[in-house]
Order: sequence, then C-alpha cells, then structure tokens
Amino acid sequence: MHELELLKSIYASASQSSDITIGPGDDMGELQIGSERILCAIDHLILGRHVTSKAPPASIGRKAIARCFSDIAAMAAHPIGSLMTACIPSDMSNDWCEQVFDGAKIVAEQWGGPIFGGDIASCNEAPPIFTVTAFATPPKRGAILRTGAEVGDYICVTGELGNSQEAHHLTFTPRIEEAQKLLQVLGEDLHSMIDISDGLGQDASHLASDTVQLVVEKNSIPLRAGATIQGALREGEDYELLFTSKTIPPSHLATVIGSVCIRKPSNPAVITSDGVDISSYGWSHT
Amino acid sequence: MHELELLKSIYASASQSSDITIGPGDDMGELQIGSERILCAIDHLILGRHVTSKAPPASIGRKAIARCFSDIAAMAAHPIGSLMTACIPSDMSNDWCEQVFDGAKIVAEQWGGPIFGGDIASCNEAPPIFTVTAFATPPKRGAILRTGAEVGDYICVTGELGNSQEAHHLTFTPRIEEAQKLLQVLGEDLHSMIDISDGLGQDASHLASDTVQLVVEKNSIPLRAGATIQGALREGEDYELLFTSKTIPPSHLATVIGSVCIRKPSNPAVITSDGVDISSYGWSHT
Repeated sequence: MHELELLKSIYASASQSSDITIGPGDDMGELQIGSERILCAIDHLILGRHVTSKAPPASIGRKAIARCFSDIAAMAAHPIGSLMTACIPSDMSNDWCEQVFDGAKIVAEQWGGPIFGGDIASCNEAPPIFTVTAFATPPKRGAILRTGAEVGDYICVTGELGNSQEAHHLTFTPRIEEAQKLLQVLGEDLHSMIDISDGLGQDASHLASDTVQLVVEKNSIPLRAGATIQGALREGEDYELLFTSKTIPPSHLATVIGSVCIRKPSNPAVITSDGVDISSYGWSHT
Repeated sequence: MHELELLKSIYASASQSSDITIGPGDDMGELQIGSERILCAIDHLILGRHVTSKAPPASIGRKAIARCFSDIAAMAAHPIGSLMTACIPSDMSNDWCEQVFDGAKIVAEQWGGPIFGGDIASCNEAPPIFTVTAFATPPKRGAILRTGAEVGDYICVTGELGNSQEAHHLTFTPRIEEAQKLLQVLGEDLHSMIDISDGLGQDASHLASDTVQLVVEKNSIPLRAGATIQGALREGEDYELLFTSKTIPPSHLATVIGSVCIRKPSNPAVITSDGVDISSYGWSHT
C-alpha cells in the first residue's frame, strides 16, 4: 500500500462544509465555530516504528506530543489543548504506561496544550500505539499554510538538519515560539510553511505548486553534528520549520537554503541547484 | 491491566487550564476559545474487538463514526466535524481501506460532522485500528454532563436495549436528534446524560455520585427483539441515551426505568429494585 497515495485519495474527497475553513492537505485542519477558528491535527506514534521499544517511556510520551505540536508550529498557531489515546497490549505494565503519559503531560502543559481527555484500549495483537490530537488557535492574520510560496521567495529553515536519530528525535522542542517570532519579524512576507518530519525533499515538495518550483542550495543546509548533506535531504524527523519568505529572516532565527522559481510543466517540484530532483527524498510511507 | 482504572489514574491527573471547561471523565472534553466553546471526543475502533473482520468494510467505517458521534448525542451537542485515522497492515487492500473510509464519510457528512483530516500509518504487527475525533458545539444552556442527577429524578432510556450484537451495533444511528428533542421538551429538568456503550449497569454508575444512587426497575427496561433482561443490563453496544430527568419525558422519546435515590456511604452506585448491585455489569475493560 502506498500510504501517501491512499491518504490523498481518501482525504481529497473528504466532505467539505462551510464550517471547515482548512480541509485535508495541510499540517492542520481548521473549523469555524461562531466567530472563532480552531485548528486540529492528529498523529500516530507506533512503538517499533516512530520510536524503539528501548526508548525511555517518558521520552516516548514526550515525542508523541512533540511531533503533533510540531504541526501547530508549522501553522504559526497557539496550542490550547490535546487529547491522547493508547492501544496497549496487556503485557505492558501500568507503570510503563503511566510513565509514557507522564512524559506526555509534562510537555503538553509546558507548551500550552494540556491533555484533557482520551481513550485507552487494550489490544494484544498490536504494539503500543498512541495518538495525539492537538488543538490550537490561529494567529490573527490566519494560519500559515503550505500553499502560498511565490516566485522570488527565499526558502528558509530553522535550526539544523540531519542525524536526528542520534538523539534529536526524542528531545526536540516543537518550534512554536520560533514560528511566532518569524511571524512577528516577517509579517505578510512569510508566505508558506511546513515542518520537516518526512525529509527535506518530500516536505519541500508540499510547498511547491504547478507554477512554483523550489531550488535548494544543498551546501547551504545547516547540518546537525554528525549529519551529512545526503542525510539532511532524506532522513526527516528534524521537526524544524521550512518556510518561504519574500524577505530574508534574521540569521539567528533561520537560514536561507534556496529560492522559489518559476515551474514549467516538465519540472520537478524540488531540485538542488545542480539539477537533481529531490522531490521524493525522505521517509518512505509505503 | 485494568483499563478503566488506568484511564482514571492517567486522565484524573491531567493538567487543567482556564481554557479547559470540561476535563476528563465525561463523554466529551470541552475547550473555551474566545467567546465560543467546542466539545471533542476520541474513540478507537479495533478490528477483531469492536467489529469482526467479516463485517462489511463500509459498516466498519460507519461504526467508527457512529460510536464516537454517540458521545456527541450524550452531551446533547451539535456535530461540526471529525478527524479519522487508520493504522493498517500492508496486506489489507487499498480497496478495503477506501470502503471503510467511504462508509465513514457518508454518515459523518449525513450527521453534520464531515471528516476534514486524519493520519494513516501502516503497521504490520497490528490489526486495522481506526480512531475518530469528533467535534461538536454545546447547546446554549451548556453540554449535558454525566454529573447532575438529583434525588427524585426519573432514570430514562431511549430506544431498546440488549442483543445489539445481532445487528444493531453495525447499523445504529447516534441519538443526536433525540437528544435535541429531549432538551427541547425537558429543558432544565434534563439533569444528566450518558450513552450506553459498555453496559447499562456500568454506564448508569457514571451518573451516580457519593450522594445519589440509581435504582433500576429491571422489568421496565425496553428490550430489543431477542434480548433478555440480563443481556440488557450487561451487554452494552446499545448506543442509546441514559439520562435522569426531574419530569417524565414523552413516551415516544424515552422510557422510565427507575429513579434516583439518596445514597448512603455503604450503598452501591446502581442497584436493581430487588437490591442487586449492578454497578459493574457490562463490558470488561480488562
């Protein structure tokens, strides 16, 4: 099964209503409720896939919250709460499970989106699976979408990329504050944004469109200790913000790694400046 | 693992904030956003547990939505949207998966809460697992909570109970409209409400408190064709509304099955009128 294809097919045909102001295909969906808007995202964390079973339980819970809250950062939104569920085999101890939830609760509260409900099911045929639903309010100008990149924009990234497996993926803090600072400094010049979870190439492709192509200068990518350029392009799990902006952000907030160009029908969505198509570089969802 | 105990322990200590107007322990949680309130619930549906693998895929998707939307009915709330996720082994066909989602999408839209996002993960070590997050707006007087039963209230139930496994659990419609009618007719007399998913005894116990006990006249329970009284007390999966009201509702909307009495410290939460403690009658979460 090609997960991304299936996902597209399923959610692309999802019903629309006037209450749904951002539908499937962005980092979060958005609902209009009376005069207010609320953003929602949901993410799985599967033991053995997104974390190894040897990871400290508190860090598993932490990551479950962090990866979902990274979607909040990607919309430049403000966390307000979260739901967390678990499917747990009966041979996992209550103690292990409580440590996972404790790890989750600490950061959920710290980052402004305390856990206020959930559901627990026992399932002996599966590894432990957690889901987090995160809720957030958009900034006044509206959530920053994946769409919106314009020809001439700078492609920018917060922090450093690559070698996340070494430790970063269990300890990162979602770039919620950084997103607010970027919004404050760049204002309307901040055109589009996503968080890097699957890999720079793949995630950058979501900022491209039929008319704009992203050209990445791979030597300008800020590398985490121990990372390689090839790893930084492909590995994912960075949970840094990738965005396009009409103006260059302050260097302490982000690094320019390329520019948005005109895309012709035959052009790939994302290339390096030496012409390599990196649109599909990243975690395989198959 | 005693799931309910674990769940209580985990969510009872969940962080509170001024934005969380209904915390863990009710059918849905509630967030305050500006001048508006939004209710949220999340539910698992595990193949082989909540439905057999032989169930038609569209009816599996339908049930995933229906059981979560039953929580909306239990708060007398109005659906506005939903998120649906899947963990799917790679040997399940795309066709099967799309049929599940199609079955879900049809009813989600029909009932006013269209699916506007989600997440799909492949997981070969697990049976197919779906989660639905449902969003709703409360009625003007506020959501109807589990707490609120008063001594002298009538205990009432919509529809019929028991023998749900025969077919009802795959075909039921959440009592969203009925809840609205009850609210309209009973007004402030509608004191507390829950939907019956785990079993009448267990679910009734959630309407009890330290000071009120529920006394059920078992012979007055409306039985579904093929159901027994013992089954109706224990089997669950009815997804009918159980509520307490100061006044008797019209008989076409609900049936009176008991009354709320004073509870002494040594009294069980729920008994039959012949004195049997049925507080734990229902689906075992262990």
